Formats: sequence, C-alpha cells, structure tokens
Amino acid sequence: MVKFKGYEFVEGGVCAAEGFTAGGVIAGIKAGNTTKRDLAMISCTERCKTAALFTSNKVKGAPIIVSREHLKDGYAQAVIVNSGNANTCNPDGVEIAEKMCELCAQALNIDSDDVLVGSTGVIGQKLNIKPIKIKIPTLAKSLSKDGSGDACEAIMTTDTRKKELAVEFELDGKKCRLGGISKGSGMINPNMCTMLAFITTDVCINGELLQKALRKVNSLTYNMVSVDGDTSTNDTLILMSSGLAGNNEIICEDKNYEIFENALYAVMMNLARETARDGEGATKLVECMVNGAPDENTAKVVAKSVISSSLVKAALFAADANWGRILCAIGYADADFDINAVSVELASAKGKLTVCADGAGIAFSEDSAKEILSEDEIKILVDLHSGEGSAIAWGCDLTFEYVKINAEYRT
Amino acid sequence: MVKFKGYEFVEGGVCAAEGFTAGGVIAGIKAGNTTKRDLAMISCTERCKTAALFTSNKVKGAPIIVSREHLKDGYAQAVIVNSGNANTCNPDGVEIAEKMCELCAQALNIDSDDVLVGSTGVIGQKLNIKPIKIKIPTLAKSLSKDGSGDACEAIMTTDTRKKELAVEFELDGKKCRLGGISKGSGMINPNMCTMLAFITTDVCINGELLQKALRKVNSLTYNMVSVDGDTSTNDTLILMSSGLAGNNEIICEDKNYEIFENALYAVMMNLARETARDGEGATKLVECMVNGAPDENTAKVVAKSVISSSLVKAALFAADANWGRILCAIGYADADFDINAVSVELASAKGKLTVCADGAGIAFSEDSAKEILSEDEIKILVDLHSGEGSAIAWGCDLTFEYVKINAEYRT
Repeated sequence: MVKFKGYEFVEGGVCAAEGFTAGGVIAGIKAGNTTKRDLAMISCTERCKTAALFTSNKVKGAPIIVSREHLKDGYAQAVIVNSGNANTCNPDGVEIAEKMCELCAQALNIDSDDVLVGSTGVIGQKLNIKPIKIKIPTLAKSLSKDGSGDACEAIMTTDTRKKELAVEFELDGKKCRLGGISKGSGMINPNMCTMLAFITTDVCINGELLQKALRKVNSLTYNMVSVDGDTSTNDTLILMSSGLAGNNEIICEDKNYEIFENALYAVMMNLARETARDGEGATKLVECMVNGAPDENTAKVVAKSVISSSLVKAALFAADANWGRILCAIGYADADFDINAVSVELASAKGKLTVCADGAGIAFSEDSAKEILSEDEIKILVDLHSGEGSAIAWGCDLTFEYVKINAEYRT
Repeated sequence: MVKFKGYEFVEGGVCAAEGFTAGGVIAGIKAGNTTKRDLAMISCTERCKTAALFTSNKVKGAPIIVSREHLKDGYAQAVIVNSGNANTCNPDGVEIAEKMCELCAQALNIDSDDVLVGSTGVIGQKLNIKPIKIKIPTLAKSLSKDGSGDACEAIMTTDTRKKELAVEFELDGKKCRLGGISKGSGMINPNMCTMLAFITTDVCINGELLQKALRKVNSLTYNMVSVDGDTSTNDTLILMSSGLAGNNEIICEDKNYEIFENALYAVMMNLARETARDGEGATKLVECMVNGAPDENTAKVVAKSVISSSLVKAALFAADANWGRILCAIGYADADFDINAVSVELASAKGKLTVCADGAGIAFSEDSAKEILSEDEIKILVDLHSGEGSAIAWGCDLTFEYVKINAEYRT
C-alpha cells in the first residue's frame, strides 16, 4: 500500500464514510454457486451527490444504460450489484436491470430512480431475476457498517483477493472519510473508465467538482492499469458523497478541494494497484514509472505500452531481465521522443539496477537482475531524458494461469 | 493455402524467379547452436530494382539502418541474414552490419552497397562477426536454385515451420515467377511493415511501381497479422526484381501491373497466413473477415481488434464459443458504426454457425460450436451491416506454450 502524508488508512472500506452501510449475500446467480457471495448492496441514509464514469466500449451492459438514466439528476442513494452474469447483450437486459433497482428500492423504502445497478460476469447469458428477487429483502436487512467485506466479496469474479480501502483526513477541522471497494481481474484495460468500483465519502462537495475530481483521478489511476488489453463492456466507477462530514461545502478548486482530490487519489491509486496485482493469473505487480517525458501524455503512453507488452510480461514471469523487450515496447509507443536518450532501471525491494542507458544495453549482473525480478513487486523505471513529464502505469506478469483461467472461464 | 485463378503455385520459394539463388548454413551465431542453420544468403545474377519496408518502431535494428542506406539508389543484388541475434541496441551494431555486407560482397564479387542485411533474435546482445566471417565464403559457394529451403530455415527463430512460397503467371506471353521466404513467430504486430520477408521476382517493372505494389499489398497482408501485439525492432520486407522474365517493363498501372500486384498478393497473403498459423505457441490459425463496414479502414480496425484480443484468443484455444468476448472486442475497436446491427458467425471445415445477430446473442448448439472450433483453421465472420467495406486479419490462439516460449526465450 502506498501511503500519503495527512491521510490515515482506516478500516471500513466502502462503509467508512458517515451514512453508508453495505452487505453481500449468496444468491446463486451462476448455476451451481452455493458458496460465494454474489449479490451486493450499498446504501446511504442520505440521497448522495453522485459522480460516475462508464465504459467506452460501444457494447454497454444493460446496468450501465439504467444507471446512466438514474443518474441524470446527479443523485443516488443505493447501489445493487451482482456478479456471475454481466447482463450484457441480452434482449431483456434493461428490463431486468430496472427490476433490480425497483426491488432494491422497495426493500430500502427509497425511490427506484435513486438506485444504481452493476453486473459483472459472463456476457450474453440471460440474467435470471428470481434468485435476486428472493434474496434482496434479506440483503437489505443485513446492511451494516461492517458490511464492506461482504459486499466486496460479492462483486468478485476471477479476483483472488478483496480490494477495499478507506482513508481519514480533515477538512475545516472536521474528520472526513473516503473509501471504496473494487473488483477486476481480467478484461482489464480501462479507457475513460474502469471495471467495477464503488467509492463513498462523507465530504460535502458540489456535484460538478465531484465529477471533475473523479474524472481526473481516474485518468491517473484506473486508466493507467492494464491486465490484458481488453476493455470490458461493464466498466463502472461510482463515487457517492453523503455530505455528512460537516465540512463547509467545497464549491471551488481551493485548498480543501485539493485535500479531497488527494484523498480520492490515495484510495483509487491503491485500489488500482491492487487490481493490477490481482490480474488474472498474475504472480507479480509491475509498476512502470516514466520520467523525463516531453509532456505528461507522452509519459502515459510510454508507461502503458511497457506494462501492456505480452513479451515484457512473459519475461517478468520468468524473472528474466530482458530489457530489449522493454526498449522495444518503449519504441513502438505512439509518441514522439528521442529513443537514443532513453535509460531503463529495474527495481524491487531487493535493489535497483540500470540495464539500459542512451538507448543501448549496458553490462549488468544477471544474478542481481534475477534477484531483483524474483520479488512480487517490480518497478520498471524509464527516463526519456527529454523533459519534465511523468506518469505511472500498473500491470502484471503473463502466466500459464492467465491462459488457463481464460480458456476455461465460460465452461 | 489460398489459391488464386491464373496463378499456379510452384516449387522454388525465393529462388523460383529467374536469376536468383540462395542458401543457408550453420554458423553457430547463438552460443551452443551446432544444429540449426542460422546464416542465409540470397543472390541474383543481376542488380535488381528493389523495394523495401522497415519497422515503424523507433528502436531500429542496425541492419535496418545499413540496408536503408544501401537502398538509396533503389538497387540491390544480394541479401545476407542471420538469426540468433537481432544486432539491435548494440553500440557497434552498424559497424557489424556493414561488415556483414562487405564480407558478402567480397565472396560474391559484387559491390558492398548492393548488399542488404537482416538480423533476427535477441535484442541487445553483441553480435560476434567471427562465425559469420568464417562461414560466408562457404555459404556463397553453396548458393543454388534449390537453396530456398535452407535459407528459410536459417532465418527461423521460434518458428516451427518454414514459410516459403512461389507462384507462376504470364505477362506478355512470358512466364513470370514471384516467390519468397518469411520468418516470424513472436513480437509480431506489423505496423507499416513486418517481420523478415524476402520476395523475389523476375518481372520487369519500374522501381516506383515496385515500391507502390509492395506498400499496398503489405497493408492488406502482413499488416493484418497479429500474434502478440508487439511490433518488432527488426521488421524488414524486401522485394527484389531481376527483370529477367522478358516481359515489357511495367511502367504504369495497367492490366499487367494488376496481374503483378495480384501475384504479389497471392504470395504475401499466404506467407502472412502461415506466419499467423505459426504464431508462438499457436494451435490454430484464426481468420477474422469483416464485411459490411462503412469503409475499408473501419473493417481493418475491427478485424484486427478481434484477432488481437487475448480473451478471444484464449477462448479459441479451449474451442469455447465465447462470442461475448468477440462482440466486446468489436465494441472497443476504435471505429464508428452501429453495434446493434452487428452479426457474428463462426466457421471452419466442420461447418458454419451464427452466434450473434443484431448485436445480441442467439440460441445455438454448443456441441456444433465445439465441433467447429476444434478444427485448426477457424474463421470469425463479422458483418457490421453498415456499408460495403471489408477486410481480413489473421491471428492465432493464446496458449500455455506462448507463455512458456516467452518466459524462457532469452535463457
């Protein structure tokens, strides 16, 4: 976990902020599943100003169509999410997604238009509303401040670990919290947005600024993650603010806005990192930091190119310091800079090693490289020596397990 | 092999055209290699009008820098190529590549400026000129009309099969030939150009038209192949014409130019298909044909998106008709069309099956789908129902073996 001064990591995940409760139950949405939670609910005592980003894929899951509609007024009070079925490319998908909102609203005694909905799992299989209908009342009754973990488990698919996180900080002398849960392991190459992530806060902030902060922080976090280059049809990122922290409403981009944005970065950046670490089949988290770029965009393009290269990823799986593949991926990135100025370092808890300078290889100890790359968190440090722009991207290695998971997923 | 009327496939590969000989020997360029040919030479009795395309990667192998320089006058007479080392990112790379040309020129008694050079293998390891220097005289003496196979073997790296091919056709009543050899198995996502391919012909044709035909046919063949999304640093495609067929020189885009261009397509398209089939670790050739696109470029973008998707590729490895992943990959292609009009069919020697219509799934027999997808040549037929544009792209499945090869390649 990357720490930030002035922001304390606290328990509670998506329920850490004032006003929010959550839960997750086993509904049996995927045939045969009787052991894994697969239906989650997040609820707030207040109608929340809510910001959201959805997938840029032309194929959009039915839940996205419905959530967008329900978000037209900028407010939401609850979220209902299932795993095990993406409710995408189904003729009756929108109807089913609407029904999920209605059932959730009834159980919570709120307006159906204030419910957002998410689904994740197989595309193109009809989502049966029955198990959801049966379980929603129980789920609604089970919501609690301790429910973040259950909700987080319920939105997992091929994820191997829960991704939940919250920070505490101060605004106007008031204690504020911001936290969230996130899922995503395969079909991950967010573009404009990301897999499923639900973030809550009690900070009081103007709706437009809420959306602005979400968009900016997303561009630096989830949008810089790639597991397999596939942009999902159901990517959904929702940020709800209950406004219960008691701070003066943030209405312009002042110091308080900056504190809030940094809190959002602390949570989303760490969730994004965990998403990369938990990439399907991954054994290593790979972080590529690019410095010295002519501008930020060049740095982003180069960083994503490196962590997206199948050949770099396979080499890292074998802890092989094949820097030629890294330089190759830097070279085919769609950006303009002098390749002959580039240097590359490999780093981990075991040390740091320069493997390439001035665009060419330099002698290094293969033993030291092997030791560094055998760690489960690897850093690839690229310096373009062409300016001040920088960026970080996160990915993982490419393993037998990735192929296994995806050759067997549907069956 | 895809056949074309009026073009007869003949033996001889890169030596089929009048004037050309070739050969390949074991030089031991990669430490420990004493069994695989790794040094190839192609020679012509004439100085040939020569067209070429090179990688778009900013990192360019030293042989590319040298070949470009030697091609400034538009002529070449011989090619020297090694596998086992890419001679890329080495401080003395250009010097070594020049030396290879000089040694080849001496042995053939031609001008060093008329020799082109190619290298393929590991990036960033010094290429030792010694074994090359020792073997070049023997190699030059061994050149023959039967040498295409040996040359083809000598340029292979992780390739599992030779890719060589030639066609015979008529121009002005004269028998003409065009053939080539090609290598490429990993780091394959040609952009503006391709892996290593050497094509020869005896057709007499103006130099500008030679380059024009090469560029166009390349955009429809090698540029539509992706194995792993990585664009190599050493992609080189060379087309040499001896002019010995006796046809009247082609000087404008007339009927004869069209016949020549089609011959080039017949050879390059089949070599490109074989490259995809022999993708690292592949068990299946995957062909995606897109019809009904608003324009050709849209069709190309969509076709490449489908064959490049890791998730589609892993599903095909398991013969799993996971059409949702295909639709997802169509959906995130960077192109403009109505996703709700899209239909998808799966086909092979075992039959054809519609799995998606109007952008949504339709009922189909999983057994039939499994049977179709268990073949080693799979077609994904996409119709966007939005116009007349069409394109074909070639790829392969993603397998355990791909990961194995690339996690172990350098060691």
